[in-house]
Amino acid sequence: MGKILHYFGAGPAALPFEVKQRIQKDIIEYEDSKLSILELSHRSEYFSNILDRSKTLLRELYAIPDNYQILFMAGGATLQFDAVPLNFSGKAKYASYLDTGFWSRKAGKLAKKYLDVKFVAGLIDHANEICCLSSSEWQVDAQSAYLHVTPNETINGVEFVGVGNVEVPVVADLTSCMLMQNIDVSKFGVLYAATQKSLGIAGLSVVIIRNDLLGGASQITPDLLRYDLHVENNSIVNTIPVFACYVAMLMLLWVKEQGGISVMVEQAKLRSKLLYDAVDSNSKLINNICKKNRSTINVAFTSNDQGVVTGLLDTAEKEGLIGLQGHRRAGGVRASMYNGTSIDAAKKLARLIRLA
Amino acid sequence: MGKILHYFGAGPAALPFEVKQRIQKDIIEYEDSKLSILELSHRSEYFSNILDRSKTLLRELYAIPDNYQILFMAGGATLQFDAVPLNFSGKAKYASYLDTGFWSRKAGKLAKKYLDVKFVAGLIDHANEICCLSSSEWQVDAQSAYLHVTPNETINGVEFVGVGNVEVPVVADLTSCMLMQNIDVSKFGVLYAATQKSLGIAGLSVVIIRNDLLGGASQITPDLLRYDLHVENNSIVNTIPVFACYVAMLMLLWVKEQGGISVMVEQAKLRSKLLYDAVDSNSKLINNICKKNRSTINVAFTSNDQGVVTGLLDTAEKEGLIGLQGHRRAGGVRASMYNGTSIDAAKKLARLIRLA
Repeated sequence: MGKILHYFGAGPAALPFEVKQRIQKDIIEYEDSKLSILELSHRSEYFSNILDRSKTLLRELYAIPDNYQILFMAGGATLQFDAVPLNFSGKAKYASYLDTGFWSRKAGKLAKKYLDVKFVAGLIDHANEICCLSSSEWQVDAQSAYLHVTPNETINGVEFVGVGNVEVPVVADLTSCMLMQNIDVSKFGVLYAATQKSLGIAGLSVVIIRNDLLGGASQITPDLLRYDLHVENNSIVNTIPVFACYVAMLMLLWVKEQGGISVMVEQAKLRSKLLYDAVDSNSKLINNICKKNRSTINVAFTSNDQGVVTGLLDTAEKEGLIGLQGHRRAGGVRASMYNGTSIDAAKKLARLIRLA
Repeated sequence: MGKILHYFGAGPAALPFEVKQRIQKDIIEYEDSKLSILELSHRSEYFSNILDRSKTLLRELYAIPDNYQILFMAGGATLQFDAVPLNFSGKAKYASYLDTGFWSRKAGKLAKKYLDVKFVAGLIDHANEICCLSSSEWQVDAQSAYLHVTPNETINGVEFVGVGNVEVPVVADLTSCMLMQNIDVSKFGVLYAATQKSLGIAGLSVVIIRNDLLGGASQITPDLLRYDLHVENNSIVNTIPVFACYVAMLMLLWVKEQGGISVMVEQAKLRSKLLYDAVDSNSKLINNICKKNRSTINVAFTSNDQGVVTGLLDTAEKEGLIGLQGHRRAGGVRASMYNGTSIDAAKKLARLIRLA
């Protein structure tokens, strides 16, 4: 049974070893509950403490103001792609979606079932480089109930941080950059993230929503997608995914112990710089995202010579660096580096990139 | 760290000890993947094998005909309460819901957002006892796209097995009786179950659907609730809850190793008979469900003397029998005994019930 050296999968992502060890212990008995964490009731005091601690940690890590609610909801980001428009479409008719790549377009496409969706250009081709338009350049229709943004796009590896001042409430999909970007929550209306990247495992989402944006759900909204119902029931509308919530709490604790989000952000910059410097130094490799918008989390690159890509993937696998295949829609190489990825892993991969 | 003796929680439910041991091992490395089961990609061959094995096992255990699809979907039964009507309401206007208690009423109530719902009487008061009407007595409107039934109601502890010949497709919520009732799948149109009772942990549902019932989804159906989309994508519409699927596979394997569903059914009968005999022998305790419809899974009873209830709960807890509080809407005592509950646990509880 060989130990993995380093995992670069796009999600479900690598978990810190100490978190896995803690989970292993709790599979047999959680605290003094006499129960496995897998058996714990969603109505037990133990679980209520798990939810409370998670909320407190997240509120502290992101300095979330008091007028925002924190919700935990079953399902991933694709379910939120429907939940967001459903929770506005009881009152609103229009929404804008900033187009920065595959995931933002998918979110907008799903929202069309409920709202008139206007796509806003988010990328610009600038001297053979793809850049993000700055928020002052976004053409947002003022009639929109909200502007949806995807600050980190995992497939093309594009990232922008912060949104400046936008006229309408900003809804952000943080699935791939949760706890990995310094953001000012007060600039957003809704923030959501599926948990399988920096908050643990798949099957759960965290939603942060400003109080005044509650209450706009359309009557056709499934109960389990209603933000207001989750607020009323402290997220326990039905049997919530208990285990996924518990893993999210462990990840929040772990981030706090590491020093908080600014430390995570610095490490992401450090890891990704190692990789981009290596890519730029190798003339056989291509990354055409402009430097300020290169994702610090998902480093994607390719080559005109497919043999170079295959060779690199093979060598990497032999050295225990796995999960590096590009997204099936993009090809090439992609290194996804969430909070569970070490600097050492990035160093090893950077060496191979230089040699590719 | 005292070991629990016996857990009677309503779900998340007790898991067999050997299943927990297996999970504990796989938290560090799953098979030869070099990854934790928590890190496994939903697009990996390992996971594809997990889904395939789960489907094969379920198909075998319930002799599911070839013209039925097996789907795995994020979220629990409450999400299916919306998914079911949404997947019919593109073509249909009416649905019938058999009323046998809290959960069947809740399912019907949620469906009203999308369809004209007719409730069908499922219970009858018969000489101070509550009985289920037999299927030949159900007054089902022939215009209904389907009849929804809840064969086991966990709060009042009412159960019926099988549905006879109903004119319209029957949709059954098996959440609390999955793998615990002998049923003929060919009599049903759709069967669904959240997994936190007999199939592992919360956050996932299994859906079994007859081919000809696919394709009726309303245009307002969220992608993650569409049965047809799950068929097209082999259940991987987005990042499916990988870990919950894996635990479901372990539970299916475990049931097969125990001898299959008929063995599970016999054990449920044995466990519940021990408890009902004890309740009937104690004149201070009340269960007013007629014998043929007493749930073999959730044994609920109460007393006119609240002190008797409290006393029994206290004694039980001291002896390591926990999770016995009745549902918060019903009070009293409730012993939920899913497949992970031993005969020994039922014997110990039966003794205390006699002494209450």
